[in-house]
Amino acid sequence: MDLEDYPLTIVLLQEMLKDVVRTKTYQNVIYQNGFLFKDKIVLDVGAGTGILSLFCAKAGAKHVYAVECSHMADMAKQIVEANGFSNVITVLKGKIEEIDLPVPQVDIIISEWMGYFLLYENMLNTVLYARDKWLVAGGVVLPDKASLHLTAIEDADYKEDKIEFWNNVYGFDMTCIRKQAMLEPLVDTVDQNQIVTNCQLLKTMDISKMTPGDASFTASFKLVAERNDYIHALVAYFDVSFTKCHKLMGFSTGPRSRATHWKQTVLYLEDVLTICEGEEIVGSMTIAQNKKNPRDVDIMLEYSLRGLHCNVSRTQYYKMR
Amino acid sequence: MDLEDYPLTIVLLQEMLKDVVRTKTYQNVIYQNGFLFKDKIVLDVGAGTGILSLFCAKAGAKHVYAVECSHMADMAKQIVEANGFSNVITVLKGKIEEIDLPVPQVDIIISEWMGYFLLYENMLNTVLYARDKWLVAGGVVLPDKASLHLTAIEDADYKEDKIEFWNNVYGFDMTCIRKQAMLEPLVDTVDQNQIVTNCQLLKTMDISKMTPGDASFTASFKLVAERNDYIHALVAYFDVSFTKCHKLMGFSTGPRSRATHWKQTVLYLEDVLTICEGEEIVGSMTIAQNKKNPRDVDIMLEYSLRGLHCNVSRTQYYKMR
Repeated sequence: MDLEDYPLTIVLLQEMLKDVVRTKTYQNVIYQNGFLFKDKIVLDVGAGTGILSLFCAKAGAKHVYAVECSHMADMAKQIVEANGFSNVITVLKGKIEEIDLPVPQVDIIISEWMGYFLLYENMLNTVLYARDKWLVAGGVVLPDKASLHLTAIEDADYKEDKIEFWNNVYGFDMTCIRKQAMLEPLVDTVDQNQIVTNCQLLKTMDISKMTPGDASFTASFKLVAERNDYIHALVAYFDVSFTKCHKLMGFSTGPRSRATHWKQTVLYLEDVLTICEGEEIVGSMTIAQNKKNPRDVDIMLEYSLRGLHCNVSRTQYYKMR
Repeated sequence: MDLEDYPLTIVLLQEMLKDVVRTKTYQNVIYQNGFLFKDKIVLDVGAGTGILSLFCAKAGAKHVYAVECSHMADMAKQIVEANGFSNVITVLKGKIEEIDLPVPQVDIIISEWMGYFLLYENMLNTVLYARDKWLVAGGVVLPDKASLHLTAIEDADYKEDKIEFWNNVYGFDMTCIRKQAMLEPLVDTVDQNQIVTNCQLLKTMDISKMTPGDASFTASFKLVAERNDYIHALVAYFDVSFTKCHKLMGFSTGPRSRATHWKQTVLYLEDVLTICEGEEIVGSMTIAQNKKNPRDVDIMLEYSLRGLHCNVSRTQYYKMR
């Protein structure tokens, strides 16, 4: 993500900071694992207000380089100074790919790089670039694991509201917009009672080892109905974890966990699936960066259900943009 | 507003269409005043999906030119065709300032050009340009009146949440962001029970006669407390009206009216004013387009209260961006 163009408004900043699942997890990871930070050199990729750098400095880091390319870097400098950490934290305004880091290597790279659907408008490539350029052998990336999951939900009311709405707008047929709406995954909060099947792990990425190409992949899935119901959408969400902590730490953005600002990502199905307990939706999801606009994510979903009341096999395309 | 750059997403389109105060008022104005439209040539400025053009066509317009510069113009073309109005509505993709209108004059200009705070990222200048270039003498602009209003509210909890939050963020001092947050008016819904004073009309603009420069002005105000209370913010909102209808029609976006997607605009005060019933806040508000970025609105607020418990006089600056 090109933070320079990113609308890092105060309202958005506050939403992210007030997302306690997000911010408190990072705070706990840092404060409860002082042994990782003590006398270490840390690089904070996409530092924003500098909050993670401040946590690291307070946890005993020797020095923290906070890199932020938006105008927020100027704020971060003031914040670092106001809190008396000017001697520990250096804010660098610029893109990771263009800045001169004053040290040859860092011990730890920390970043909150995750976007909606994990991969939409994310900073992952920037983190991997920094890792390859500056992380010492045996250094730590925080977080170091990120997983994408899939499940299926009943969502009659909302699909009616968001998708079928376009069939009749004040008496007019706007079905061409319905087609567009079907192509765009919806970032929204799903109630856990809507979940009809198991939750399937699609992919785990090891941030300490992966290449940028590993963020494009095809993963197969099998979703087994846990009750008789209808299925209107598949829902994707992600977990991140910090496996280098004294004990495993992390958080999930799934519908069964406390809500975060990432919510979940809803992919509406063309068909309403009438599914019986024990029946399986099998298929695969292919995720790729859009070639023209690398911020966009292209998704191909293949699925089929061979059930008592429903026999369907289909391919749908989505684009997050 | 440069619609080409405007994120006319499907979610936003739906929010605007589902704003029934907005869309139903336009529909009622058009359907209940067929005499205005019968055999007339209409220009729809910033047509979006073409919904207003469809209303006009259905109301008996001879021809409607729907001008839209975003990619939504392609959708509008499909929608016009799907609804059988291709012979009445012509969708023109482009900027008003650059398109070739196939007729020398139009009888009616209709537009939903209003932005947050009426004037933020609005299309008013485009409407005025179209009016001066194409509107026949005695032609009608819909809506033809827009008014900006001001009132004062108690808002302790929300100011704490939005502004004072920055004083202590997970233990760190981010007061430099507090300063920024104070500069940015907040678009949000205000409960009518928070209103402490009268509502004062600041300015009425006559869209059929005004010049672009009339959207920059200084207006004085006097807000009289209707009860003993504290005042944390001033709140601005707008009304629009269609005075050429058979009877006066229009809507208000004020806190005492049904909520719209425009909500209200909250300007937090540096001081908390302790005000007694009958005491007056007097002052003036100066509104100007930002010279560097014409989409931005600069606001200067001067106010003073000479009260029993509070004696304050201050100037504050805000910028909507």
